[in-house]
Amino acid sequence: MSFDPLAGLPDDTARRDALARARLSALSEPGDGVLGALVAALGAEDALEAALSDADDAAAVAGAAADLEATAVVEGRRRWAPRRGETARVLDDAARTGVVLVTPQHPHWPVRIDDLGPHAPLCLWVRGETSAVRADVAVAIVGARAATGYGEHVAGELAASLAPDGVAVVSGAAYGIDGAAHRAALGAGGVTVAFLAGGVDRAYPAGHQDLLRRIVTTGGAVVGEVPCGSAPTKWRFLARNRLIAAASDATVVVEAGWRSGSLNTASHAASIGRPLGAVPGAITSATSAGCHRLLRTHDAVCITGADDVREMLGIGGEPVGVSVAGDGLLVRVLDALSIRSPRGVDDVARRSGLSPQEVQSTLGLLRLEGAVSASDDGWTALPRR
Amino acid sequence: MSFDPLAGLPDDTARRDALARARLSALSEPGDGVLGALVAALGAEDALEAALSDADDAAAVAGAAADLEATAVVEGRRRWAPRRGETARVLDDAARTGVVLVTPQHPHWPVRIDDLGPHAPLCLWVRGETSAVRADVAVAIVGARAATGYGEHVAGELAASLAPDGVAVVSGAAYGIDGAAHRAALGAGGVTVAFLAGGVDRAYPAGHQDLLRRIVTTGGAVVGEVPCGSAPTKWRFLARNRLIAAASDATVVVEAGWRSGSLNTASHAASIGRPLGAVPGAITSATSAGCHRLLRTHDAVCITGADDVREMLGIGGEPVGVSVAGDGLLVRVLDALSIRSPRGVDDVARRSGLSPQEVQSTLGLLRLEGAVSASDDGWTALPRR
Repeated sequence: MSFDPLAGLPDDTARRDALARARLSALSEPGDGVLGALVAALGAEDALEAALSDADDAAAVAGAAADLEATAVVEGRRRWAPRRGETARVLDDAARTGVVLVTPQHPHWPVRIDDLGPHAPLCLWVRGETSAVRADVAVAIVGARAATGYGEHVAGELAASLAPDGVAVVSGAAYGIDGAAHRAALGAGGVTVAFLAGGVDRAYPAGHQDLLRRIVTTGGAVVGEVPCGSAPTKWRFLARNRLIAAASDATVVVEAGWRSGSLNTASHAASIGRPLGAVPGAITSATSAGCHRLLRTHDAVCITGADDVREMLGIGGEPVGVSVAGDGLLVRVLDALSIRSPRGVDDVARRSGLSPQEVQSTLGLLRLEGAVSASDDGWTALPRR
Repeated sequence: MSFDPLAGLPDDTARRDALARARLSALSEPGDGVLGALVAALGAEDALEAALSDADDAAAVAGAAADLEATAVVEGRRRWAPRRGETARVLDDAARTGVVLVTPQHPHWPVRIDDLGPHAPLCLWVRGETSAVRADVAVAIVGARAATGYGEHVAGELAASLAPDGVAVVSGAAYGIDGAAHRAALGAGGVTVAFLAGGVDRAYPAGHQDLLRRIVTTGGAVVGEVPCGSAPTKWRFLARNRLIAAASDATVVVEAGWRSGSLNTASHAASIGRPLGAVPGAITSATSAGCHRLLRTHDAVCITGADDVREMLGIGGEPVGVSVAGDGLLVRVLDALSIRSPRGVDDVARRSGLSPQEVQSTLGLLRLEGAVSASDDGWTALPRR
């Protein structure tokens, strides 16, 4: 085999670390906090050795990692032992299918994702352009699989508007909102990144095989944290959602039912302090109920278009100025004028409840704006242009 | 004339005060803060005398009211003088059309409205049941005249659900959302109150003449702060909006364009600290743009149904509990089971990435919930009911 999944790493030390991380990723389920703590304390190679050890040294191992109890190590070893046999050939499928391993020492490791702490992924398996995973600005656009035409339209509009600005569009490759976001980013010539719950060597959902291939061949990336060949289980979907949130500067939920998985993504975004947006819809639409739930209980920002997302990302122009109050004097004097009969200042004063002095100065202002005209008979309002 | 607009007042002192307030309401435009300060300082009768006086005593008059400058009194007199002639017969039209005068000394004065401070109305002219104006709980349901079918449907659903609970539905009698709210409250046998911008002796809009008559004859009220015969000018619409907000415990905007007058009502509600709700809609609908603006920039509560309004009003049941996270162990063990092939604990442990001990105890829990079954061959998942 000529393809080397570790080729992007800078040196042999980084490669040894990466191989250990790959093996650890086969040993554990995503987000295993005990393993994350061991890797942080011991480094990946020693953590792998400690994880697989049969020695009676749980207390010593735990002692090396702050905040870890010996019982957690004992429990962890019981979890990891059943998969001991799956670590050996962990790179083979990746090499065969052209999948690259990205680790914290890889130049394209998405540093944002480290905000997950001990629940950060040990490594990322990437098909396509690894630099896409580390875009300067990235937004997650996610939502219901059973989306409506409205939801898919909005997801597409947002992605198509943001992608040309160099914003990477991150999503989960599902049917519905996810697919619409990826497709629109591709259509706009932008970069898009799909995080899968299973191994990146298999297309999931199968109906998105072509979409995933297009992402990979046009500067984007398809990413997972479990080794090639791993099935996309329900648990891994929940775990995958934390990656979408952590790999993005902000998360926008476009449509979501009351118990949609995208609410889980939204929770992750909020829990690591990332801005969270939700697109409203009709309250009679079940597919917007989850978005309204985020607006009500999670303090999500109400997103009405791409400019609102730019504001949330801190890019683009000034927010539109907002002034709800009108200018009372102008309104009251205009109320008191006719467009047919000229009226004198005293008449206008009585009708408007203003003093003749106020009326006089306001009429002057309105005349400058071309809203009124004066004649010998008095003042007349001009029709609105 | 046999009908006495002052009949509801408790004694002659209250009647003299009411007559002065009625005259002051003819002298000034709504919300005249200088006049409000004078009435607060001197009482209505002396304030009327001071307002109409030609004496060179502005400084002395201002001195009686804290925070009032002599120039404000001079300016005020210039505003009020042109209308001196309109105060004399201010009760005549009311007596002829059966309109009742409600003042702060009337038992049905809506005390909530005093939160407007010096901008509170001097008096309220009421057709119908004065007690409706002082309902225990009142909600303003307002919105665009050019409403969509969606908006009118939602306004109707909210009013029809809240009115039977004894919540008075307050609105502005306009076409669109206002009309839908009033009609649904009437249809549900509830109490509804319409605040008009002009005199309550004339139906505005004319097309709502029947609706206004039904409100008056079925326990509701039609209310204004300007005397009978006064035209509904644009300024008076803006001023009327503050009454809708202040006469209600909370305000809900159902549909509103980007510059809708109901945003003005919403601003008033927020400025006196009343809860403000907005119903979301499709971001592609121009008639929801104002609601989304309130959600984005005015911290409005996202309203998805009558229960959300009840929560805002502090009545009704508990809010629905919200838990977005799933139970990891249950999900992971179920992921690892088949509904066809029985699997042993060790096999499930390897597939789920859990220890055999964790799998064993989780399977016990799932069995209690009827989610799995055990046989000599191992464990099987049961199809979801």
